[in-house]
Amino acid sequence: MKKYNVGLIGAGFMGKAHSLAYAGMPMFFWPAPGIPVRKIMCDVSDELAKDAAARFGFEKYTSKWQDLVNDPEIDVVDISTPNNTHAEIAIAAAKAGKHILCEKPIATTTADAFAMVEAVEKAGIKNQLAFNYRRVPAVVFAKKLIDEGVLGRIFTYRGTYFSGGDTKGGMGWRQLRSVAGYGSLGDIGTHSIDVARYLIGDFEAVNGLLRTFVPERPFGPKQEMHKVENDDEASFSIQFKNGAIGSIEAGGNSWGRNNQIAFEIYGEKGAILFDYEHRDELRVAFGDDPVDRRGFRTISTGGPAHPYGNGLWPIDGIGIGYGELKIIECYDFFKAIAENKEATPNFRAGYEISLICDAIAQSSETGKWIEIK
Amino acid sequence: MKKYNVGLIGAGFMGKAHSLAYAGMPMFFWPAPGIPVRKIMCDVSDELAKDAAARFGFEKYTSKWQDLVNDPEIDVVDISTPNNTHAEIAIAAAKAGKHILCEKPIATTTADAFAMVEAVEKAGIKNQLAFNYRRVPAVVFAKKLIDEGVLGRIFTYRGTYFSGGDTKGGMGWRQLRSVAGYGSLGDIGTHSIDVARYLIGDFEAVNGLLRTFVPERPFGPKQEMHKVENDDEASFSIQFKNGAIGSIEAGGNSWGRNNQIAFEIYGEKGAILFDYEHRDELRVAFGDDPVDRRGFRTISTGGPAHPYGNGLWPIDGIGIGYGELKIIECYDFFKAIAENKEATPNFRAGYEISLICDAIAQSSETGKWIEIK
Amino acid sequence: MKKYNVGLIGAGFMGKAHSLAYAGMPMFFWPAPGIPVRKIMCDVSDELAKDAAARFGFEKYTSKWQDLVNDPEIDVVDISTPNNTHAEIAIAAAKAGKHILCEKPIATTTADAFAMVEAVEKAGIKNQLAFNYRRVPAVVFAKKLIDEGVLGRIFTYRGTYFSGGDTKGGMGWRQLRSVAGYGSLGDIGTHSIDVARYLIGDFEAVNGLLRTFVPERPFGPKQEMHKVENDDEASFSIQFKNGAIGSIEAGGNSWGRNNQIAFEIYGEKGAILFDYEHRDELRVAFGDDPVDRRGFRTISTGGPAHPYGNGLWPIDGIGIGYGELKIIECYDFFKAIAENKEATPNFRAGYEISLICDAIAQSSETGKWIEIK
Amino acid sequence: MKKYNVGLIGAGFMGKAHSLAYAGMPMFFWPAPGIPVRKIMCDVSDELAKDAAARFGFEKYTSKWQDLVNDPEIDVVDISTPNNTHAEIAIAAAKAGKHILCEKPIATTTADAFAMVEAVEKAGIKNQLAFNYRRVPAVVFAKKLIDEGVLGRIFTYRGTYFSGGDTKGGMGWRQLRSVAGYGSLGDIGTHSIDVARYLIGDFEAVNGLLRTFVPERPFGPKQEMHKVENDDEASFSIQFKNGAIGSIEAGGNSWGRNNQIAFEIYGEKGAILFDYEHRDELRVAFGDDPVDRRGFRTISTGGPAHPYGNGLWPIDGIGIGYGELKIIECYDFFKAIAENKEATPNFRAGYEISLICDAIAQSSETGKWIEIK
Repeated sequence: MKKYNVGLIGAGFMGKAHSLAYAGMPMFFWPAPGIPVRKIMCDVSDELAKDAAARFGFEKYTSKWQDLVNDPEIDVVDISTPNNTHAEIAIAAAKAGKHILCEKPIATTTADAFAMVEAVEKAGIKNQLAFNYRRVPAVVFAKKLIDEGVLGRIFTYRGTYFSGGDTKGGMGWRQLRSVAGYGSLGDIGTHSIDVARYLIGDFEAVNGLLRTFVPERPFGPKQEMHKVENDDEASFSIQFKNGAIGSIEAGGNSWGRNNQIAFEIYGEKGAILFDYEHRDELRVAFGDDPVDRRGFRTISTGGPAHPYGNGLWPIDGIGIGYGELKIIECYDFFKAIAENKEATPNFRAGYEISLICDAIAQSSETGKWIEIK
Repeated sequence: MKKYNVGLIGAGFMGKAHSLAYAGMPMFFWPAPGIPVRKIMCDVSDELAKDAAARFGFEKYTSKWQDLVNDPEIDVVDISTPNNTHAEIAIAAAKAGKHILCEKPIATTTADAFAMVEAVEKAGIKNQLAFNYRRVPAVVFAKKLIDEGVLGRIFTYRGTYFSGGDTKGGMGWRQLRSVAGYGSLGDIGTHSIDVARYLIGDFEAVNGLLRTFVPERPFGPKQEMHKVENDDEASFSIQFKNGAIGSIEAGGNSWGRNNQIAFEIYGEKGAILFDYEHRDELRVAFGDDPVDRRGFRTISTGGPAHPYGNGLWPIDGIGIGYGELKIIECYDFFKAIAENKEATPNFRAGYEISLICDAIAQSSETGKWIEIK
Repeated sequence: MKKYNVGLIGAGFMGKAHSLAYAGMPMFFWPAPGIPVRKIMCDVSDELAKDAAARFGFEKYTSKWQDLVNDPEIDVVDISTPNNTHAEIAIAAAKAGKHILCEKPIATTTADAFAMVEAVEKAGIKNQLAFNYRRVPAVVFAKKLIDEGVLGRIFTYRGTYFSGGDTKGGMGWRQLRSVAGYGSLGDIGTHSIDVARYLIGDFEAVNGLLRTFVPERPFGPKQEMHKVENDDEASFSIQFKNGAIGSIEAGGNSWGRNNQIAFEIYGEKGAILFDYEHRDELRVAFGDDPVDRRGFRTISTGGPAHPYGNGLWPIDGIGIGYGELKIIECYDFFKAIAENKEATPNFRAGYEISLICDAIAQSSETGKWIEIK
Repeated sequence: MKKYNVGLIGAGFMGKAHSLAYAGMPMFFWPAPGIPVRKIMCDVSDELAKDAAARFGFEKYTSKWQDLVNDPEIDVVDISTPNNTHAEIAIAAAKAGKHILCEKPIATTTADAFAMVEAVEKAGIKNQLAFNYRRVPAVVFAKKLIDEGVLGRIFTYRGTYFSGGDTKGGMGWRQLRSVAGYGSLGDIGTHSIDVARYLIGDFEAVNGLLRTFVPERPFGPKQEMHKVENDDEASFSIQFKNGAIGSIEAGGNSWGRNNQIAFEIYGEKGAILFDYEHRDELRVAFGDDPVDRRGFRTISTGGPAHPYGNGLWPIDGIGIGYGELKIIECYDFFKAIAENKEATPNFRAGYEISLICDAIAQSSETGKWIEIK
């Protein structure tokens, strides 16, 4: 199996998740589409980078991402840094001919996103955004059922992503417009948009409301009050090109919820429910079940009979966590490289999602439906 | 305790539910605000009315609602007939000085609704619409918590009412515009609107989509295909006057759901979830619980400690059904009469809901937010 | 339809529930097997009986149950009094040739229970014990599925009945051995035993533990501490005659639970789950569903397609409460009278359950399996 | 940080899980108590071992476990082989002075288990059995609450472990007595016993039933019918030394269930529910909550505020899977080594569980309670 040298930029939460994926992917999917070698770790200082390399099992380290990106040894660049750095790094990596796995959302502005698309398409390298929730086995199984026609024509889609809750809680870079772009819309809403597009199809138009319900929060080392610079709540309606209608709510002030990405899909012949809080289950109502024994089936999707089942655990219900999810993501990325196929969702998809976010913001200001081109 | 002679018009599903309530109300709430006497039953033919009187325990029967309405013996007129008959009967009953309990929605047109309001306000009689879901003990308890400030400032409201599912199923009068008015919006959406107004407050503006996903269905004795004349799906966004935002979806094609009126409310200090499928529970997240033992509490609301608990069953969890719900509704209506207070929701509330429905329809056509006056 | 004059003894919680059932039964099940006429109400004093008669809609009242029982007008005697009074009243009623509906458990001693059986069998009258949970539509549907062979051979049965919780809470007559007999075992455990026998079949042997975890509680008007005289926890294993094994736990100290009678049944071809907290649902796993779309179906059982569906509400999911449950019980009792068939569960069944309770107590003392004859 | 060379024997499901843990543990828990180095992989043939070494990232491989065990480079021996091989390998590893992580159950006979205990205690090395479910953060949090006295005196414990379901499904080594020892009791029941002992305390006596409901299943390459040699169902009652009572059911024929280890604990002051199907949640009823806002809190336990939260994901609800669970297990094992403390549960605990299994089997044969010494 071919080895691929990975350079990972960013030693935070996502750096950890991706590192586990590089180590674990071939253990799960064997023979593997490629063996990721944890080659160079990059973080903002040599000290941090050195520590992270030891922790995450990388051979070398640097505090200069440019060095990493241009290192001839490196095959794959992994961008796990704050949103406002994605464009510069990705464009450089593309120019250097590296395949790129980039965290979501793609960028802080649609202009940056478009420049990234141009760079990777020109370079002809594989590029993937880490919208990982479309890779939950239950979600992939939902896609399979829809594609098989189990739901018939789709009527409605309801997506939610509720997180946070602590309205007194501190803020970080995700609440700074210049670093993060949109707030709840960008951070969690884009996941829901990605899943909706994956399952239902392209958006025709959107109409929504952005709000910043908690206008200031403690920030920085002294936890002084600072303005929240972007939305903490995004709620919008969707008209899909195929005639379905839908809504998505991305709420950053949801007491009692934690990381609850969920959806309900109702169609001509059935319905599907998913809730990441119970992520190993897909609930499916089959309209053609006999009337007296009809109801949502709670299908355990974390075992051999379901998507990625050959690679995951052999016992259904033994548990898919975030670790396993990132391993699946890693597998699909290297499979795209090995098979020379387009990775999904790619930067173009991320750019399209960025356009949708702009349209939602515009609709929130104008009160009008905005078409998605 | 004072006795009130009731004349009930309409021997269908609602006639049954109301009859049980008249019989059972004093059994539950004792001393009762009044003893309803099942005096005259009215249905479309003498034969049907006679049979219904025997079944529902009424002393007399008639097939002429005008006779019932004008009978000097009658104190209370109960209108449990199709929507398009409400106005004529209610206006006549008001003129005759009878108190009126009327099934929802108020009428098929806002003009009719307004005429009904004028009539009852002129007559000075008690008038109540049977939006019964606001009377589920769990919902009343939610209202209590909100009023106490447990949630602090309300940020978002999400209401759903999913029913039906069988897209091949037959249609009835509820799918005929002239008899029913709006479809899913009028039949189930109005319940959700009533609950939202009850819990959160007045609407500032709405913006939504009406759809008829299943354009024709079997109808009539021969079950020949007939056009569905109104919406089977209504999805809309709300701006509340108090700054909260929200959405409601009323879906008549929801496989796997049956009569699922539900809501989620997120506020500054907590959150509340309700789902009529599990109607004896209210789920509440208290933001001030310690961080490591915080989460939705599943509170059983069907016992002595909760609203109407003195009148309902003495054992928590023994079960609130539709029968108990209608008994509560009946109790509140007679309490308003006995105490000479305004019944809620009254015809004016129903008229305001009718205006909201018109605004939703208008927004669906124009794509614009429509203000609610 | 034939009218039956009912004399109801006991104006407490159960008197209320039964009164609602008498009023409501013909409204639901029409044409009715009989029209119950609320004729005489009996309670411990004339004052209480008079008040109860007004409240529950009875024509007359008395404080002497003997007069009620021997009144030639009376067709049906309803015994809703504490357990230790059942035998004397029931035997007198049987001698007077009245049909009897008696609350559960049958009596405080097996000797009393046996005397009751002898009396009713000699008198040839209809006799029914109010083990109402076997009449929940979901439970009846479970029985139907089992009888159809959907589960194949039954392997295991797990029953629970968790109630109460407040270990500081006061006690009443149910904690006095002379008035109640067994404690949690008698009050709630007998319901679970009845359901197990109904669904799975006869018991071969039992082995269990009785405990009184809270030895004293506030009692009486002054709420002075008083010894709890019977078990507050009963946990036992079952060997069924058909080879299945099972367990039942009846817990009276279950914080967070309220009136949660539940069961899980696993068989050769499928599994069934029921939980009264969500009483309108039966969860069924069909083993022959395809492996990738297999899982518990949450079947809404409160509508037309399920047991008693023709008589209950026409809309699935609109809600079955305790009121509806008691209406079903009443219907079945009058149907047995009208059709001259054995009512179920009859006093003999109650006597057999009493024998099982004795066997459980004996096993708790001896540590041995006790055969049920 | 100190490096420890690990030799892993067994390249199956558990070999994969443990390998991921060795790679991922320092990524999660940093600074790590030790850095596991994947040194030697052993499987039944050189070919398989070589392939597994490549897949799981081991430096060397062998098909001779004796060589691995005695290799001076090796610090830790990981036994992930079928049950009947544990004793021989573990005793040899202990003699060679290696720390041992061994899969559960400890052995196929109590005699073997005792020999293993003697060997490791004599050698003075760290020894741990992979009863991983006691390490789910929610379970550890339950332990914390119990230890804090949140539940007060424990009254009852109900444990279940339901798996499998497919009664036509094939058998493997786990259904052969000589290879596996007990069936469902040994494979899954021992997990439940371990959790019960961890949470509630030592067992005083047990009384149960073992059954083999499916007597033969397809086996081997030709899938010919073969006798199932051990139990597929174990159900037993427990008397704990502290006065609590309990029951455990380990069912291997549970349609609709997959890997559902669950428990309910009721105590004087509260109750706790856990279900591995929803493993990121602990449900806790606090008896001292106000009566009208009391109910099970669904506490998300997969974040920073809960056990192991500093090492796991920084976002509550992002998901704990089997991978994360094994990482925790690995962390605790190396922590015991680094801090020279006893690992838990150790071989002695495994031996005690083996004694309990024997007692259950004996009670199943004799019908009597068997004391645990």
